[in-house]
Amino acid sequence: MDIDAKAFQVMESAKVDLNAWATVGEPLCKSKKAYSKLLQDHVERLSDLQRMLYASNHHALLVVFQAMDTAGKDGAIRHVMSGVNPQGCQVFSFQHPSAQELQHDFLWRTTRNLPERGHIGIFNRSYYEEVLIVRVHHNILVGECLADTHSEEAVWTGRFRSIVDLERHLHANGTRIVKVFLHLSKDEQRRRLLARIDEPESNWKFEFADVEERKHWDVYMQAYAQALTATSTADCPWFIVPADDKDSARLIVSQIVLDALVGLKLSYPVASAARRRQLQAVRKRMTS
Amino acid sequence: MDIDAKAFQVMESAKVDLNAWATVGEPLCKSKKAYSKLLQDHVERLSDLQRMLYASNHHALLVVFQAMDTAGKDGAIRHVMSGVNPQGCQVFSFQHPSAQELQHDFLWRTTRNLPERGHIGIFNRSYYEEVLIVRVHHNILVGECLADTHSEEAVWTGRFRSIVDLERHLHANGTRIVKVFLHLSKDEQRRRLLARIDEPESNWKFEFADVEERKHWDVYMQAYAQALTATSTADCPWFIVPADDKDSARLIVSQIVLDALVGLKLSYPVASAARRRQLQAVRKRMTS
Repeated sequence: MDIDAKAFQVMESAKVDLNAWATVGEPLCKSKKAYSKLLQDHVERLSDLQRMLYASNHHALLVVFQAMDTAGKDGAIRHVMSGVNPQGCQVFSFQHPSAQELQHDFLWRTTRNLPERGHIGIFNRSYYEEVLIVRVHHNILVGECLADTHSEEAVWTGRFRSIVDLERHLHANGTRIVKVFLHLSKDEQRRRLLARIDEPESNWKFEFADVEERKHWDVYMQAYAQALTATSTADCPWFIVPADDKDSARLIVSQIVLDALVGLKLSYPVASAARRRQLQAVRKRMTS
Repeated sequence: MDIDAKAFQVMESAKVDLNAWATVGEPLCKSKKAYSKLLQDHVERLSDLQRMLYASNHHALLVVFQAMDTAGKDGAIRHVMSGVNPQGCQVFSFQHPSAQELQHDFLWRTTRNLPERGHIGIFNRSYYEEVLIVRVHHNILVGECLADTHSEEAVWTGRFRSIVDLERHLHANGTRIVKVFLHLSKDEQRRRLLARIDEPESNWKFEFADVEERKHWDVYMQAYAQALTATSTADCPWFIVPADDKDSARLIVSQIVLDALVGLKLSYPVASAARRRQLQAVRKRMTS
């Protein structure tokens, strides 16, 4: 069964107001069991499509995840991508940049890890951090030693342009890009953080910094809204996925990835007549 | 003494006709000795400026060299950059791409080797090969497994746009880019190839493929003219350097690199009053 993932897509040049986008959607399945069955179906189709992507070797797929802490990025990646052969799928998590990475332009470290043709690349956080956390915390920008004196506003406008240009280039050269914002409410984040304290097996996940970041919630939401507005294009769209319900969020994410692969109209390479003759000749030699 | 390197710059949106650009320029010095002295002066200034580039850590410089075989790229790099501390200057030569590199978009392998802030990066050949040799030899393009069916013309137009967008992004983020085309005549190439055969100590340099490539001379010149026309911008300009005379070519190249560094108005970072006080306090502790 397919879900209408288009409903969550940010249309090119639409102005995003995150208050107008739900953090809880309509239920997609009647029961937990139905949800599991549908997700499993999605994952199996994903796995088949990934093999075809690999075999035809003309496109790559890049899936970008961005969200506030506890929104479920890791869980979505685990549940949606676990059925896919890891040889054809690489996940990169971008945390604090290294000293070497800071010596380069802000797109360099992620560009080095772009997926090869035939592969799916997952970015758990991405170059979008450079217009999100860096925008919220001015001292990070100072640490990036920018060359020229621009107004802060010009820095963000310039970065949006660089990102759109890069994604256009990648699309034109065969990489398909979908970007997922897991849209969590502040209340639900509070519940999830408290659960991390209350459940002993979740304690390890609790980061004191996450509580600090909550103080900047509204500024983050503004930064997200502007980034989504400026960088969602017809070719490389953003999807705003309601994330208060993890099960629904994962189903929507798997549908988005499925749609992107289906859109490539993949098929296994067909052997030419000459190649078929060669194959038969080899077969003969090997069996005589 | 400074040379007027501006005379060799391709102005933005000027249409390049390579027949109208000289391969032999006016003599720049009266004697071989005067040439050596001037080049040495340039190299010393380059070395000083590179130290300041490194100390101020806000900009990088990328120098791209493109030319037909035997035009003197290696010699120019050796003579102009030899005085510069190799810790602050890296040269990358781009020959046949690796299997892994071919699995990525055409800008990927050079992007990985872009210079860090504070450094000079030299590209001996570059991503421009992707609109030069790849344009002349159709089979290379086929080997790149392009994703979508474009007309050939659209491939080159798309690549020019990707290149201009990338260079704009790099410039906006602190990397200064100058691009040098060493403009050699077909006759002078013939003389140099023959010399490689006749001089035993040059035999190792002779590549049989170079003679083959000569057959495509006119097609190469067309590809160069179009690339220079499409990608020379005010911020990231091309220079067409007459290359039949090696001494003059090297002087012009060193002047181009000098101008780019001088344009950055570099200076050593000045210690703030607070830092000066700290330094004096440390001094006192270390000497008491």
